[in-house]
Amino acid sequence: MILFPMAKRIERLKKTGNAKNIDAFLFTSAPTIKCLSGYFYNFEIGASPFQLLPAVLLVVLSKNTTIIIADNESYATEGAGSEISVKSYSSYVYEKPLDFTAQFLLKLHEALRESNLSNALIGIEQNSLPFVISQSITSAYPKIKFVDVTNEITYLKALKDSDEIENIRKATALCDIGQAAVLKHAKIGMTELELFSLVRTEMEASVGKRVPIMLDLVSGARTKDGGGIPSNNIIRYGDLILSDLTPCLNGYWGDTCNTIIIGEPTTEQSKHYKLVQQALQSAIDFIKPGIKANEVDQLLRKHLSSVGVYGHHSGHGIGTSYHEEPRIAPYNEMPLEPNMVIALEPAVYRNGYGIRLEHIVNVTTTGCEVLSKFNHQFRKF
Amino acid sequence: MILFPMAKRIERLKKTGNAKNIDAFLFTSAPTIKCLSGYFYNFEIGASPFQLLPAVLLVVLSKNTTIIIADNESYATEGAGSEISVKSYSSYVYEKPLDFTAQFLLKLHEALRESNLSNALIGIEQNSLPFVISQSITSAYPKIKFVDVTNEITYLKALKDSDEIENIRKATALCDIGQAAVLKHAKIGMTELELFSLVRTEMEASVGKRVPIMLDLVSGARTKDGGGIPSNNIIRYGDLILSDLTPCLNGYWGDTCNTIIIGEPTTEQSKHYKLVQQALQSAIDFIKPGIKANEVDQLLRKHLSSVGVYGHHSGHGIGTSYHEEPRIAPYNEMPLEPNMVIALEPAVYRNGYGIRLEHIVNVTTTGCEVLSKFNHQFRKF
Repeated sequence: MILFPMAKRIERLKKTGNAKNIDAFLFTSAPTIKCLSGYFYNFEIGASPFQLLPAVLLVVLSKNTTIIIADNESYATEGAGSEISVKSYSSYVYEKPLDFTAQFLLKLHEALRESNLSNALIGIEQNSLPFVISQSITSAYPKIKFVDVTNEITYLKALKDSDEIENIRKATALCDIGQAAVLKHAKIGMTELELFSLVRTEMEASVGKRVPIMLDLVSGARTKDGGGIPSNNIIRYGDLILSDLTPCLNGYWGDTCNTIIIGEPTTEQSKHYKLVQQALQSAIDFIKPGIKANEVDQLLRKHLSSVGVYGHHSGHGIGTSYHEEPRIAPYNEMPLEPNMVIALEPAVYRNGYGIRLEHIVNVTTTGCEVLSKFNHQFRKF
Repeated sequence: MILFPMAKRIERLKKTGNAKNIDAFLFTSAPTIKCLSGYFYNFEIGASPFQLLPAVLLVVLSKNTTIIIADNESYATEGAGSEISVKSYSSYVYEKPLDFTAQFLLKLHEALRESNLSNALIGIEQNSLPFVISQSITSAYPKIKFVDVTNEITYLKALKDSDEIENIRKATALCDIGQAAVLKHAKIGMTELELFSLVRTEMEASVGKRVPIMLDLVSGARTKDGGGIPSNNIIRYGDLILSDLTPCLNGYWGDTCNTIIIGEPTTEQSKHYKLVQQALQSAIDFIKPGIKANEVDQLLRKHLSSVGVYGHHSGHGIGTSYHEEPRIAPYNEMPLEPNMVIALEPAVYRNGYGIRLEHIVNVTTTGCEVLSKFNHQFRKF
């Protein structure tokens, strides 16, 4: 028997749908589908040339939820439990030509018929719904109407259930392994790419498989711009190394940043490192339900105002997307709520170098819990 | 002055459009946009939460081509040359909330107005065109009609121009480096993941940056299923290692496969390796314009019929997608033409192990040229 923690989110979604007289939702974006069904397609090799979309999720308010997927029987037996009906179609075989779009549409129409949606108001994600799907539905059922629910989904995803917090905790533990590996392996004379390879190797070995990872890994003067992909740039004595590791583990992202120095820091660098650390801690101490996102942003900027302002947000929500609400930015008046998971990333960029430190926190009923366990450390010992 | 080799493909496309009374094309899929404009968005970190699409390309038959991209000034100055107008919009800033979809649509409507397309027949890719775009266009211009041109684009992309062949040659050279690294690093006692990390490190170092890579890297009994992602499975004496490396270098894919043995092969294994090698060579000798894709498939299967049939295609076209036409499969009567680039991958799966060997060839006017330079080698010396 598979536990199906996503059922809680589907219930919240149905309440939203009821309030808007929506009969069903048709989801087409990967982060939403992961959040609501658990289904994850590894994106790191790009879009498949064998399918229209990795999955489409149909949530019918008065009935079951159905996922339509290509050639993926393992999700049917392992992932969904009994809460989600799986319709799987054949997308590619070598023996005969197959029109995977037509195969998918057959299953979609089957699902629409079974749920009597010929007259429905369907909530969609307008940015990711493919034309071929909308066209095919409205041709067959001219009375079906679509309404964009992107904003509603954004809010739903900002509030994490306990299973999601556990998933982010695991992804963050992977960041911890990566940050420890940066400290362990960083050496004068190696390239940023070589360092990255050693770090990624440890991260992947710890979970026994490849892991998609977005990252900044830059050294020396490159740190002053705050980021960039690792290059053949050679690490030299006195260089700072900024490593912002953002891996995606089974569909949930982790995200932490540390900055280290190879050699002796200057007095100014040490002072700045401490200042960023204090700023980060002050935000962690400040966060609790009811505080607005931009109040956190303001606090961080104020703390660092004596050493210049960083030209980016102070943080962001994280989950099945690596950047989501609540965005910790000057304009954002969204009040924080329990179970919002936030990456905080104050920084100093100055005098030819940059220092950024980042932790992930989960807002609790009284404050917040720091999910990342790695202690920021500037010097290698 | 930037050379703009894509202009040749845009001309071919316009001829296709003329024959179908199409006024313009609106492209939304990444492989097509790379092929026609050179613009490449690195997909390995998934879809950006900051934009609707990495790029949209509008090819107007009687006018210029326009690309609409988010925050990417470097393409504007380096990539496009003078042949493509660039409309760039701001998708995300930390200072104020930005609706990136609205920002994008403003630019799209500007482009449509400038080209007087209010009454046009527009060729689209129905699988990748987002609903929000089709909806926005037909609301503003009810007389605009869409026609799906997926099949036409599939054929256009199957025929490579010389710049594309050079790009695939470079991606294939990267495969060569990877295959040599497999032979160099494979050792008893290491995991598949450890081997993969060393291989990827050499591949990425050779080009000085991260490279998205799809791959099968499996050892021992896992080889009999033909593939899988590298795991913590430990390589043991007598194991075969099947490495099918498919990196994407600047938007063009390479793809080669080798199988090696750690230790002494059995007589049967050596015989099978030779048989697959001979099959591959026989297909290379056979290929020339006019030969049908399924004749190549048939030849390969016939060559290996004494040792069992492999349950997959015999090969596929490659370019800005890792799997495209011409598919070398039993059903496919597509005649080969010069400048079709094809990966050929015959295999034997039998008695608990698998051997697959793969080369990439470019069809010439008289035969074909093998683009991969790595010589398949079974034993480590």
